[in-house]
Amino acid sequence: MTKISERELLMIPGPINFDPAVLRAMSRPTPSHTAPDFIEVFGEALKGLRKVFMAEDGQPFVVAGSGTLAMEMATVNFLARGDKVLVINTGYFGDRYADLLSRYPVEVRQVRAGIGEVPPTALIRETLEGDSYKLMTVTHVDTSTGVKVDVENIGRIARDFDTLTIVDGVCATAATEFRQGDWGIDVCFTASQKAIGVPPGLAILMVSKKALDRFQERTEPVLNFYCDLKNWLPVMHAYEMGRPSYFATPPVNLIIALRESVGRILEEGMENRFKRHRTMARAVQAAVKELGLTMVPKRQELLAETITAPHYPGGADPATFLGYMKDEGVIVAGGLHPEIKEKYFRIGHMGPINDGDILATVGAVEKAMRRFGLDVGPGKGLAAAQGILSSS
Amino acid sequence: MTKISERELLMIPGPINFDPAVLRAMSRPTPSHTAPDFIEVFGEALKGLRKVFMAEDGQPFVVAGSGTLAMEMATVNFLARGDKVLVINTGYFGDRYADLLSRYPVEVRQVRAGIGEVPPTALIRETLEGDSYKLMTVTHVDTSTGVKVDVENIGRIARDFDTLTIVDGVCATAATEFRQGDWGIDVCFTASQKAIGVPPGLAILMVSKKALDRFQERTEPVLNFYCDLKNWLPVMHAYEMGRPSYFATPPVNLIIALRESVGRILEEGMENRFKRHRTMARAVQAAVKELGLTMVPKRQELLAETITAPHYPGGADPATFLGYMKDEGVIVAGGLHPEIKEKYFRIGHMGPINDGDILATVGAVEKAMRRFGLDVGPGKGLAAAQGILSSS
Amino acid sequence: MTKISERELLMIPGPINFDPAVLRAMSRPTPSHTAPDFIEVFGEALKGLRKVFMAEDGQPFVVAGSGTLAMEMATVNFLARGDKVLVINTGYFGDRYADLLSRYPVEVRQVRAGIGEVPPTALIRETLEGDSYKLMTVTHVDTSTGVKVDVENIGRIARDFDTLTIVDGVCATAATEFRQGDWGIDVCFTASQKAIGVPPGLAILMVSKKALDRFQERTEPVLNFYCDLKNWLPVMHAYEMGRPSYFATPPVNLIIALRESVGRILEEGMENRFKRHRTMARAVQAAVKELGLTMVPKRQELLAETITAPHYPGGADPATFLGYMKDEGVIVAGGLHPEIKEKYFRIGHMGPINDGDILATVGAVEKAMRRFGLDVGPGKGLAAAQGILSSS
Amino acid sequence: MTKISERELLMIPGPINFDPAVLRAMSRPTPSHTAPDFIEVFGEALKGLRKVFMAEDGQPFVVAGSGTLAMEMATVNFLARGDKVLVINTGYFGDRYADLLSRYPVEVRQVRAGIGEVPPTALIRETLEGDSYKLMTVTHVDTSTGVKVDVENIGRIARDFDTLTIVDGVCATAATEFRQGDWGIDVCFTASQKAIGVPPGLAILMVSKKALDRFQERTEPVLNFYCDLKNWLPVMHAYEMGRPSYFATPPVNLIIALRESVGRILEEGMENRFKRHRTMARAVQAAVKELGLTMVPKRQELLAETITAPHYPGGADPATFLGYMKDEGVIVAGGLHPEIKEKYFRIGHMGPINDGDILATVGAVEKAMRRFGLDVGPGKGLAAAQGILSSS
Repeated sequence: MTKISERELLMIPGPINFDPAVLRAMSRPTPSHTAPDFIEVFGEALKGLRKVFMAEDGQPFVVAGSGTLAMEMATVNFLARGDKVLVINTGYFGDRYADLLSRYPVEVRQVRAGIGEVPPTALIRETLEGDSYKLMTVTHVDTSTGVKVDVENIGRIARDFDTLTIVDGVCATAATEFRQGDWGIDVCFTASQKAIGVPPGLAILMVSKKALDRFQERTEPVLNFYCDLKNWLPVMHAYEMGRPSYFATPPVNLIIALRESVGRILEEGMENRFKRHRTMARAVQAAVKELGLTMVPKRQELLAETITAPHYPGGADPATFLGYMKDEGVIVAGGLHPEIKEKYFRIGHMGPINDGDILATVGAVEKAMRRFGLDVGPGKGLAAAQGILSSS
Repeated sequence: MTKISERELLMIPGPINFDPAVLRAMSRPTPSHTAPDFIEVFGEALKGLRKVFMAEDGQPFVVAGSGTLAMEMATVNFLARGDKVLVINTGYFGDRYADLLSRYPVEVRQVRAGIGEVPPTALIRETLEGDSYKLMTVTHVDTSTGVKVDVENIGRIARDFDTLTIVDGVCATAATEFRQGDWGIDVCFTASQKAIGVPPGLAILMVSKKALDRFQERTEPVLNFYCDLKNWLPVMHAYEMGRPSYFATPPVNLIIALRESVGRILEEGMENRFKRHRTMARAVQAAVKELGLTMVPKRQELLAETITAPHYPGGADPATFLGYMKDEGVIVAGGLHPEIKEKYFRIGHMGPINDGDILATVGAVEKAMRRFGLDVGPGKGLAAAQGILSSS
Repeated sequence: MTKISERELLMIPGPINFDPAVLRAMSRPTPSHTAPDFIEVFGEALKGLRKVFMAEDGQPFVVAGSGTLAMEMATVNFLARGDKVLVINTGYFGDRYADLLSRYPVEVRQVRAGIGEVPPTALIRETLEGDSYKLMTVTHVDTSTGVKVDVENIGRIARDFDTLTIVDGVCATAATEFRQGDWGIDVCFTASQKAIGVPPGLAILMVSKKALDRFQERTEPVLNFYCDLKNWLPVMHAYEMGRPSYFATPPVNLIIALRESVGRILEEGMENRFKRHRTMARAVQAAVKELGLTMVPKRQELLAETITAPHYPGGADPATFLGYMKDEGVIVAGGLHPEIKEKYFRIGHMGPINDGDILATVGAVEKAMRRFGLDVGPGKGLAAAQGILSSS
Repeated sequence: MTKISERELLMIPGPINFDPAVLRAMSRPTPSHTAPDFIEVFGEALKGLRKVFMAEDGQPFVVAGSGTLAMEMATVNFLARGDKVLVINTGYFGDRYADLLSRYPVEVRQVRAGIGEVPPTALIRETLEGDSYKLMTVTHVDTSTGVKVDVENIGRIARDFDTLTIVDGVCATAATEFRQGDWGIDVCFTASQKAIGVPPGLAILMVSKKALDRFQERTEPVLNFYCDLKNWLPVMHAYEMGRPSYFATPPVNLIIALRESVGRILEEGMENRFKRHRTMARAVQAAVKELGLTMVPKRQELLAETITAPHYPGGADPATFLGYMKDEGVIVAGGLHPEIKEKYFRIGHMGPINDGDILATVGAVEKAMRRFGLDVGPGKGLAAAQGILSSS
């Protein structure tokens, strides 16, 4: 796995550029999962997550698995046979939620929007009024398209109904403004490799007191063993209380890394963090616009703070374009949404990155475009980005 | 998480002492999960696992999760509503399998043995004759008691029935003799933090061609999304073929570490590895016997190669005993089986350890016993261990 | 030593941004200095250095110490009592050479230039004609001012005299064009933390066959023990031949890191490397010029490829300016030359960095200037840099 | 540099087994040597060293280099032309000191002892009385033979003369009892890779107030530039005061590792540390004696706490014996003293090792002996070692 340089800029929507200190934490000789110092570390990570999610009364869960596991955990624990579920679908991960839930003996209904759009508030409200839904799911930022949903608004709507709100925060949490407590979100989940800043392998959930109470009242067993919160709850309690406990061996090194990263996130402060991500996003978005590229999200207010999804410049072959970017030491991702996969690319901008990384990325886009013979005045995109960055 | 020394010997049945090179691999700046060099690494890890499991026609699966997830994946993919399952129960993890399967609409029957024993062959055969079982599960080595089942024999029995054999290899694979192909085992699974030698976070399965064919013929959807092999199969195929593919973000750093560890395992060679573990186990077991400690497993032939489970010496308080061991820099585990939890401890001896580590462990047991006022001639246990180690 | 992010860009003239793989090599469990695999690694590093210095018949020396130690080793081994030495002085490190040599019973003469200038060829030639010098020293790039001497030309002059040419390559070797063999340079030395790309702690010398022969003919003992090449030569020979040898314990981990870095340098190729550094330098220099900053080196052809030394913008307090840069995650260095220390800063651009790092640095300079109220159109410097970077 | 396992036990007299946390510190992205947080780290390391040397009024120096550089620094700074020096020679490193000093315009006299012996007190005293010596050097523990000098006694003698006492603590400091202040030692030096517990590359000196005053009074320049304490003193002062300073780029990563290791040393406490090393040494020495091996040091009271130097068992070929040890995962060193090089080997036992490591080493010696057909009852040496270890 040698290559000339490992100093690449990983500007994809996860895994992201991790802090070297977090990576170093990964290589600590693994302690026993019941060692007092590890118990303390795990406890601190859990307490810290509560602040990251801004969920004062939330119960965090950290489990070995991917974001997809978190999707499953976040829903099946609250569902019984015959329940109705509403999926607010804004793309690939909305489709996945519908697919995932179809395995279970529940009824799934979706409100969908065209690519690059979000379903209108009125439609969501109307749908909720039309039937009794146990829960609804919404993707805060769709990793496939860069479309952001106004989750605060969804929380507001949900208050009028007896429906649990499940937020897929995978491409948003710890970067995009999110206040689980204030906004009345019942469950939010993410995966470690996004703005949480830890290599992939952790599914992370934050369950509100209301949702946890609802869970604990259930009588029917959860239709899935690994996902069953009943298995995990005593473990999370124990670690937070400083006592050993066992259900499955926790991913010790990833959790040590999580504590390291959460500590740094809180040192920055959530408000600073939201602001930094907003500025970086606006800078990238101003730059690509200046370079003549259009965006997958249809409206300005749908643009995410964590990811930018521009269409390829005219005439650019996807693989070649991505290769040109890589030549500049900047890794961006191709399209993911099956219908338009070949038409756009994705720039992730999350975690411990800074203005310099944004400029490096924009510079690489400019250079890639020039290699396609496009007449991009050198620095045009950079100036647009810098305009935003230096006025913040 | 400072302590005077990180040079502790972690002699528990997982996580184990990992090779420093494997730990260093954990800290590599995470590449994209679709980067060509990572694809190559993942492909090599998969190919290597086939040799570790000695399953020439097997299909490996590597998924973010714990061993418990692997238990679920290894069974639910092969079950349909109403199927019958036989659990060969030798302790804690047999109980867990029964509990896990009880969530699903299948019928679970168990053959059980007393603590420290295994169910007799005749009883297993008789039970299989009495009904039609879709699959049976067996724990190769029960991490809770150190009892080893003769899995080759189980494979032999299974040939007479149309029942899939699922082996929980968590505390055995890559250390205890196991030849999946030759022994006709349909599915074997393990977790990374045991003899595979990688920090916790990976669920690893090897599915025989027969079992995979059976899976692919199924028409009913799997009753669990994250566990559904249909989601993972194309991904595993693609990585092994050198092509990118996506279902869920793979735990990139753990997989880089897996390749590193599997490379070292194969460099040692499976036969050497089986022999080394056998010798180390016999040495520990001779030593504790010489020191007057009795074992949880009732008979010599049930003693595992990966773990030794002695009863505490008379009068020793569990927590104090474990603390005395820790004072010597050797971490061993307390009991796990709920019925006898306070009566025994567990010494893991898996992975990249050597004779010196065995002596260090035995020396620590001797010293802990002396601190309880037990008259252990210094070096008595050591001499017994060394007798085995130096005649091998 | 916690800080919010370790992802800083270290744009000082050493230590530089090291490749993560090189840093990881630093943390390998230290093998014995006589272990066969370490001997191999050391041997490979030595062989590789010969290619980096382009000194086919050179003898490399790698010794624990700093660049200053290398200065001493590079001269005292070739001097006897009463010898005359010529120091071609272009700044701080020329002064240091004169100071260093004044300890020894030799006669030191200097040709000096004003700050930002180099002594004229005619003066050097004339001086050499005026007396018989055993050796002359020249600083390829003066780390204090960013002035580059035409070393090829110095080599050409030297051919007409029986004077050994000692090149201080600390801020040049492995980045700036240098062909020790072709140019007839007798000794060149550097330190690990510059373009060689290894954390500080290694003094590295390359001694030509002619100089080594001259050394081996000497009869008087070297007036310094640690510096005496006679102690080190058998060790270097032995390691390169694959045999153990001992004089002083080699800095094992740094040498493992050296092999890693040298391997990457040669993978890039020296010609590519010279070109990359040239382009990066020209881009930084175009940018700072565009931003209205003047340079310490007086003429275009004196600008180094490894470092740029601009004067602070009008009105900028040095510490505040450097602090503003740090706020942007870019570390640059203050002035070093005592006479003008408070008037300029230094940007290092060496090693495994790329165009993106250049843009990040220029962007930070722009932002720092704006914070001083200077009317810098955002992106003006970036556009200038990008103009160079994208035409290369 | 792949091998099956990196989990080797490095039982040579340096480099030693480093703590994983120290190795991890080596891989931190190198900060600027003038970064505030690095300044703090360096300052803490210096302050900590004062406690390790038990030299309340001492001035520490930490310089890139090996122990041999430290030898030179520790003497040349206190010598003027024509001075007389007494070398108390107990082996290889006494010879080296005489050789080293012979480069300088001083007069060197030696008191020598046979191999495995130390010069008698009376002879030392008598020699000092016979002439006026500026300084005398003594090797606390000779790495080549394992002979320990009673340095407290040397300090006592020195008080009667106006002679500076320079202690080579390379194989002793931070492990063997040493109280620089109380014992009135003027200069003590060591290298990082011994009991200080940091990979090789640092020369470390502790200079008493008296010696420093003497140095500062000198008028003649030091006959060596890199070694001149005048260059280093302001730097050490500045770092300890929390201010940046520059003479030569400090070996940043090694210094970060030094702070980590010194912190752990002090956490253990010097008295505990002396006791632990004493016990480990006595255990190894009891074991090799029990196995019938004789020691290079001629008398019990000359045995070091850091190294044991037994003669090879009868008939054992050196390379084969060392190879057998390596097969067991234990690296020991061959002989170093030229006169008896092929007759003995050396076991280092310094730093963050424990009783288990001692047993592992003894076990390996037993097994190596058996492979030579020697009738060593398995566990005989182990029992002897364990007898000591468990009575402490």
